[in-house]
Amino acid sequence: MPEDERPIQPVSGTIMPRYAGPSTFARLPELRDVPRCDVAILGIPFDSGTSYRPGARFGPQAIRQASRHLRTQYHPDYDTEPFVEQQVADAGDVACNPFNIEQAIAQIQAAATDLLGTVGCIISLGGDHTIAVPLLRAVNHHHGPVALVHFDAHLDTWDTYFGAPYTHGTPFRRAAEEGLFLDDASMHVGIRGPLYSRHDLERDAALGFKVIHCDAFQTEGVAHVVQRIRQRVGAHPLYLSIDIDVLDPAHAPGTGTPEIAGMTSRELVGVLRGLAGLNLVSADVVEVAPAYDHAEVTSLAAATIVYELTNLFARKGCPSE
Amino acid sequence: MPEDERPIQPVSGTIMPRYAGPSTFARLPELRDVPRCDVAILGIPFDSGTSYRPGARFGPQAIRQASRHLRTQYHPDYDTEPFVEQQVADAGDVACNPFNIEQAIAQIQAAATDLLGTVGCIISLGGDHTIAVPLLRAVNHHHGPVALVHFDAHLDTWDTYFGAPYTHGTPFRRAAEEGLFLDDASMHVGIRGPLYSRHDLERDAALGFKVIHCDAFQTEGVAHVVQRIRQRVGAHPLYLSIDIDVLDPAHAPGTGTPEIAGMTSRELVGVLRGLAGLNLVSADVVEVAPAYDHAEVTSLAAATIVYELTNLFARKGCPSE
Amino acid sequence: MPEDERPIQPVSGTIMPRYAGPSTFARLPELRDVPRCDVAILGIPFDSGTSYRPGARFGPQAIRQASRHLRTQYHPDYDTEPFVEQQVADAGDVACNPFNIEQAIAQIQAAATDLLGTVGCIISLGGDHTIAVPLLRAVNHHHGPVALVHFDAHLDTWDTYFGAPYTHGTPFRRAAEEGLFLDDASMHVGIRGPLYSRHDLERDAALGFKVIHCDAFQTEGVAHVVQRIRQRVGAHPLYLSIDIDVLDPAHAPGTGTPEIAGMTSRELVGVLRGLAGLNLVSADVVEVAPAYDHAEVTSLAAATIVYELTNLFARKGCPSE
Amino acid sequence: MPEDERPIQPVSGTIMPRYAGPSTFARLPELRDVPRCDVAILGIPFDSGTSYRPGARFGPQAIRQASRHLRTQYHPDYDTEPFVEQQVADAGDVACNPFNIEQAIAQIQAAATDLLGTVGCIISLGGDHTIAVPLLRAVNHHHGPVALVHFDAHLDTWDTYFGAPYTHGTPFRRAAEEGLFLDDASMHVGIRGPLYSRHDLERDAALGFKVIHCDAFQTEGVAHVVQRIRQRVGAHPLYLSIDIDVLDPAHAPGTGTPEIAGMTSRELVGVLRGLAGLNLVSADVVEVAPAYDHAEVTSLAAATIVYELTNLFARKGCPSE
Amino acid sequence: MPEDERPIQPVSGTIMPRYAGPSTFARLPELRDVPRCDVAILGIPFDSGTSYRPGARFGPQAIRQASRHLRTQYHPDYDTEPFVEQQVADAGDVACNPFNIEQAIAQIQAAATDLLGTVGCIISLGGDHTIAVPLLRAVNHHHGPVALVHFDAHLDTWDTYFGAPYTHGTPFRRAAEEGLFLDDASMHVGIRGPLYSRHDLERDAALGFKVIHCDAFQTEGVAHVVQRIRQRVGAHPLYLSIDIDVLDPAHAPGTGTPEIAGMTSRELVGVLRGLAGLNLVSADVVEVAPAYDHAEVTSLAAATIVYELTNLFARKGCPSE
Amino acid sequence: MPEDERPIQPVSGTIMPRYAGPSTFARLPELRDVPRCDVAILGIPFDSGTSYRPGARFGPQAIRQASRHLRTQYHPDYDTEPFVEQQVADAGDVACNPFNIEQAIAQIQAAATDLLGTVGCIISLGGDHTIAVPLLRAVNHHHGPVALVHFDAHLDTWDTYFGAPYTHGTPFRRAAEEGLFLDDASMHVGIRGPLYSRHDLERDAALGFKVIHCDAFQTEGVAHVVQRIRQRVGAHPLYLSIDIDVLDPAHAPGTGTPEIAGMTSRELVGVLRGLAGLNLVSADVVEVAPAYDHAEVTSLAAATIVYELTNLFARKGCPSE
Repeated sequence: MPEDERPIQPVSGTIMPRYAGPSTFARLPELRDVPRCDVAILGIPFDSGTSYRPGARFGPQAIRQASRHLRTQYHPDYDTEPFVEQQVADAGDVACNPFNIEQAIAQIQAAATDLLGTVGCIISLGGDHTIAVPLLRAVNHHHGPVALVHFDAHLDTWDTYFGAPYTHGTPFRRAAEEGLFLDDASMHVGIRGPLYSRHDLERDAALGFKVIHCDAFQTEGVAHVVQRIRQRVGAHPLYLSIDIDVLDPAHAPGTGTPEIAGMTSRELVGVLRGLAGLNLVSADVVEVAPAYDHAEVTSLAAATIVYELTNLFARKGCPSE
Repeated sequence: MPEDERPIQPVSGTIMPRYAGPSTFARLPELRDVPRCDVAILGIPFDSGTSYRPGARFGPQAIRQASRHLRTQYHPDYDTEPFVEQQVADAGDVACNPFNIEQAIAQIQAAATDLLGTVGCIISLGGDHTIAVPLLRAVNHHHGPVALVHFDAHLDTWDTYFGAPYTHGTPFRRAAEEGLFLDDASMHVGIRGPLYSRHDLERDAALGFKVIHCDAFQTEGVAHVVQRIRQRVGAHPLYLSIDIDVLDPAHAPGTGTPEIAGMTSRELVGVLRGLAGLNLVSADVVEVAPAYDHAEVTSLAAATIVYELTNLFARKGCPSE
Repeated sequence: MPEDERPIQPVSGTIMPRYAGPSTFARLPELRDVPRCDVAILGIPFDSGTSYRPGARFGPQAIRQASRHLRTQYHPDYDTEPFVEQQVADAGDVACNPFNIEQAIAQIQAAATDLLGTVGCIISLGGDHTIAVPLLRAVNHHHGPVALVHFDAHLDTWDTYFGAPYTHGTPFRRAAEEGLFLDDASMHVGIRGPLYSRHDLERDAALGFKVIHCDAFQTEGVAHVVQRIRQRVGAHPLYLSIDIDVLDPAHAPGTGTPEIAGMTSRELVGVLRGLAGLNLVSADVVEVAPAYDHAEVTSLAAATIVYELTNLFARKGCPSE
Repeated sequence: MPEDERPIQPVSGTIMPRYAGPSTFARLPELRDVPRCDVAILGIPFDSGTSYRPGARFGPQAIRQASRHLRTQYHPDYDTEPFVEQQVADAGDVACNPFNIEQAIAQIQAAATDLLGTVGCIISLGGDHTIAVPLLRAVNHHHGPVALVHFDAHLDTWDTYFGAPYTHGTPFRRAAEEGLFLDDASMHVGIRGPLYSRHDLERDAALGFKVIHCDAFQTEGVAHVVQRIRQRVGAHPLYLSIDIDVLDPAHAPGTGTPEIAGMTSRELVGVLRGLAGLNLVSADVVEVAPAYDHAEVTSLAAATIVYELTNLFARKGCPSE
Repeated sequence: MPEDERPIQPVSGTIMPRYAGPSTFARLPELRDVPRCDVAILGIPFDSGTSYRPGARFGPQAIRQASRHLRTQYHPDYDTEPFVEQQVADAGDVACNPFNIEQAIAQIQAAATDLLGTVGCIISLGGDHTIAVPLLRAVNHHHGPVALVHFDAHLDTWDTYFGAPYTHGTPFRRAAEEGLFLDDASMHVGIRGPLYSRHDLERDAALGFKVIHCDAFQTEGVAHVVQRIRQRVGAHPLYLSIDIDVLDPAHAPGTGTPEIAGMTSRELVGVLRGLAGLNLVSADVVEVAPAYDHAEVTSLAAATIVYELTNLFARKGCPSE
Repeated sequence: MPEDERPIQPVSGTIMPRYAGPSTFARLPELRDVPRCDVAILGIPFDSGTSYRPGARFGPQAIRQASRHLRTQYHPDYDTEPFVEQQVADAGDVACNPFNIEQAIAQIQAAATDLLGTVGCIISLGGDHTIAVPLLRAVNHHHGPVALVHFDAHLDTWDTYFGAPYTHGTPFRRAAEEGLFLDDASMHVGIRGPLYSRHDLERDAALGFKVIHCDAFQTEGVAHVVQRIRQRVGAHPLYLSIDIDVLDPAHAPGTGTPEIAGMTSRELVGVLRGLAGLNLVSADVVEVAPAYDHAEVTSLAAATIVYELTNLFARKGCPSE
């Protein structure tokens, strides 16, 4: 590509030590500093939909801070240079009203819809899982209904909490009601633990979800899980929604509703790498609650997953290995 | 007093070690277990009015857990046996909707109003400072307007945050608008730090508050501060609202909007002891956010302050020393 | 079942947010509030038998606090509604003398023996592993010798420590001497690491234990381990004693004598689920030392395991899958 | 002032919650975004001169993160609107070689000298105290020798450590050798604790320093200390170098060489406020080591002090109260 | 003094960085490496007398680790070179049975009595306060009854806990019964908070104690407190027993029974410095529980106090300033 | 062996509780106290080669403190009594200049070369990975080039960082240039994550390394990895260099450059046990940064690995199982 069209790179770690310099994700350029943008990183500091331990409002900053540590030039597992092959930039944070869930949802929807008008796709940094609703609306606005692959310990398809329709436990019920995802191409991955009712799984299935229980990683292995996901998603436009609590609390203590018996981070990046070539259109990584983190274990996991996603975007449409 | 009218005591530490046994405040009886109650401890686990670090929803449980450690039989600084001279009991928690501030306020107001119909007074465990509005309403319902002495780093008389009238930065503006406190008998104690506007102090004064700056503890000393408060409050019914962030972050790191240059815990208990004899009608201790605490420093401070308040209730109406 | 015989349920999370309300395990009713009880949760806050990092005296309260977070209505992996199919209640804490090990053991034995006279079975919350001796005595009083399946990093069959016969490293030697378990139906699971002597394993075997080394989870897999346990236990009355340090320190840092190279929590719940249908008569979960925990990782693991056990009780005697 | 000359303000907390938005100090504009700049905030992430606990390289980012929490519009203790009365902006970080102390010093000196060519003055965020040497050189380049008022637990006038002339224990010896400060107008404030030698104080005095022992705050009070500083500094251009360990570890645990029996944060801001009107030309706040911090106690203290300094710049040359 | 009689010095920080080298207190020689010893540092890792948060068994190691950080050559506030003017050495730890309080007391008594046969005096590192009894016995064996000055939040003169006569709440009752201290020369300093009974203070006074309430530091000041202590102690042989919880939890969170409204570390070292010249014969610093510490705040306070004590020994018998 | 030639044992845990007594590794004798030494434990507290989170200078002390907890008499997985079959002793720390990398390297090289003149082999406790260069030089001095098996998340074969040839990211490039290892017998194990350049792996291979990706533990299993290592190393003298960050952050948060998707500690000890019988000549365990650790999780992992290594030395030359 002509030099003046080459993507603007992150600040180099050979000049500015990685613990210093800009506070953007991976020290990438700000959106205002790039002429065009393929993948935008968008902070959504909102946690008023949280039912247990709050604090995901500090997630975007914590993920960005942890992302300083990443080496980002070349990823051998994807054989990609994700910041060279495409322009990635940090689009800053959406201003969300912490005292009014509906208004915050509207703000997020507007910001994401606008942003998708000018950038290719978005990786959103949560924030709690409530934000998946306006993000899916924005994606639908541009792409129509998507295959939704949802990594989480929990189904997040409950109806209401305390009468509230929009919370971090209900986004995919709302999304189903609005037809935001393809009910024959969507699934939950990593689900585990007890439920609110004997009927939760049926109701969830009725919305169009298949479930890959977290135990499958132990009993079937990563490769088999990958195959099941690829088969279900096919060539549909894909939205990945990754709740960090899909990881075991050993790997992600800093989250609001941890659930033991979870995935290892090695399994999670293993699955993601297996999705190379799929038609990924946008994604989110949510529920990092830094007040419960230690030594950046959780925010580094989230930052690495975001980086992995940039590799998936770079490999988008490429034939799978 | 006849033996069968003697207050029911906390579980004795000579039988059940203090780290064990019931999880009520100071291992006191539950409200349902006492025939009458002079002072009720009421948990209000609500933090949806928080503007910065959330988590005060876990405050009541953390304060109760820290309160196990208290020795409570006799307080030499008050010369009181607060649990012998009056029946103190734990009234449990108010169910507050975390997703609807207005509904939560209504729930708190109803619960506190009801409770004050059967108990003498309430010490509320926050929860964020939003809860002061429904608590003051309940107190007004029973006592009419009160002298409000408000310990805090911040004025909490701002108008709205993001359009929301009820947040933890605005309760005393709302209270003023509703005439819930006596504008010639109220004051802020411990205020410090920068403000949102040059006019904050004037506007605050217009609501009827006097301000004792936190530096006064350094320059004038505790005894003088006590004198200023007693003078202003006089014989009016008194409501004490104590935001734990009135303490320096060294003494109370576990809070949502810490402000350096604060009070020591020795100064705070010193002031409280100086208020013995005043006509205290109810009180709250708010803004303990355990996720930011360490080694129970903050929750122990809050628990001790609550216990100090029970001594003030025991000394209520007694002539001051 | 007739409505008035239906078990009293935990406080509903749809009315009272899970972070609020009673401090009983999983917000279950207290024992005094139920007409009958199938499974009692009993706190045993005792840690004077600890040889390294103390603090398990705070274990019961920490496990109860973490248990707030549990969703408990329906467990799909067991197909049970454990609090509907049986009455589960919190029996509070045993008062244990922290300064006199023998007296504490007597207190625990008396309390558990009494309790088993009125409830079906007990899940004890430690406390250090010393408590297994009086608990096994109480169980023997009602059931005779039991198959003992002991999850732990350590054998706990040493003779004495500093001359003391009752410590957290010696309970199963004492139990063997008293004939409290069936020597042809008992085993240790998860054992690993170095030993005090070349002869430890022989001596342990002489007491009747088989050992499943922790590596077996890696080399044989969960299903095979389950099979070995079921085969050995058969139809005997079963007592499960679960030292939280059977988990790797990544999954359970908050314990007194951590040992690396341990089980994942996914493996542990996998094994437990495999034991469905066995004739479980009582159980303990011990050695949670909250001062060394972070973000409730350990106490949540323990709380979840306790909940899993309630499912095993619900499935007791049911044919295995 | 004409509207188009009015300073560009920080992102407003009424639009973007303070926990979100840009990661600049107090969410101020970046230097590149302002037409002129009166006070520049400059990060100097360097800690290779540390003799005990390292980690101050993460200081600038931690201070900026904590500074989000500040309310900055109006400071009643100075009667200033520091971001309205002058343009304050964030100049980002200096790239410092972590493996070559001399080169890092040259980099800092060059960056600061350049910057002072275009901005009025600098508040540097350390980094360890080594950085005071190149900063003083830069200030001397523009202002000539300055009155140096140094807040610290330690003298920092030792000769060499392990043969190294430039470390965080030696900057003011080097500065003295180069004549960078006025030897009749400089002093240490907050000094305490034991010394390396009986002769440390004499040698220090020979360099031109007066010492205000930390006990003076207890025995003489803040007002008297202020008077002693003002007297010694007079109308000279003033450089303030503030090592966060001048605060007691209770107020600033997150630092490399803590020393007990220190100042409270209330005393420190009290002294700073007392310096209003002096001819402050630049300043640094150093030795924040976030890995040892808790709940942002230390970084919030540092951020608040930096903000206080912006008020001192706003009041510079104004007559003292 | 002849060179070969000069005390053996700690490892020099100019050769071996302070974070490295031997793990003795302040990197002093071991007792076995010195021909004679004036002041021995003795670890007493025992905490089985603890009533609330255990863990002081790890106190000695934590204090030694924190002591690495101390600069120890010259103390300007005493004008002493404490390791030059006298031989100070680390005598290691006493082996204490954690499962048998009486035996542990016997072990401590024997070890301390023996040690005092060959060294001038002992500074003991606790361990919980139970250890004061055997230490006072050992001191009495060599010096007869002593003036006891006891710094603590609590009286520690209760009778028994759970029937146990030797616990951390009862040492000075036992000591009184045995006549181990002079009842006309002893006092508690720093006492505060509520009591177990209205009669605690009378009973305590009957044992011969005067009490300096912690508030005295606020109302009277350090100098006056010093005067009261010196007056009471006079020329008697003096034993100092310092419970770290005499400090406020802000200054010493890492302890078992913290009590708010305590002393600052500046006040404590101020008082100690005021005792220069008194006839100090031995001392202890107890109740450091590292599991509750943060950033070594508590263990550094304890280590510094131990070092201050070595200065008091160096100034022993010197005329007061 | 004759009794007077039997190795001197660690302090017995039956006499001195493990939390007490000497601070040497596993409470082993100091080197000066043994007549001969087969395996020396050597602390190398140096971290000035760190590129991200510093603090490994505190590694040796933290590993020694955690090692107290180890039971060390007999290891059933090796069938060894490692401290009986050979004399193991603690050689203390090397004095390393923190301000001069080259001088520190010379100090380490001299110390290790000297030590290997009198002891059989060394296990070094880092410190950052820079120290591998002087350690390999010392080993080469005595043994010639070695097979190098390097456990790490990172290749550590980069050329320079900020112009510095000796850093923790470059040791094995330097070692290759100096011919310190056998280029047909060396390998990296546990490598994962992104790289600085598309060419990193080729360049690394050109130095003679084979790479076992961390995923191999998931896809191939431990036994297969062991086989690959044994095949490559053969009978060559073997040096093991173990960067603790080869473990997943869940298992080792306390390190400077954590990388998710790592090995479990069970996999790591599994591999090490598989190397029994190989001709191990020395080893290091590096990059423990205690300021980022929690509950000793990381330092206990490192201490256990060091202990495992002593078993490998005991099994050296024995036929493999």
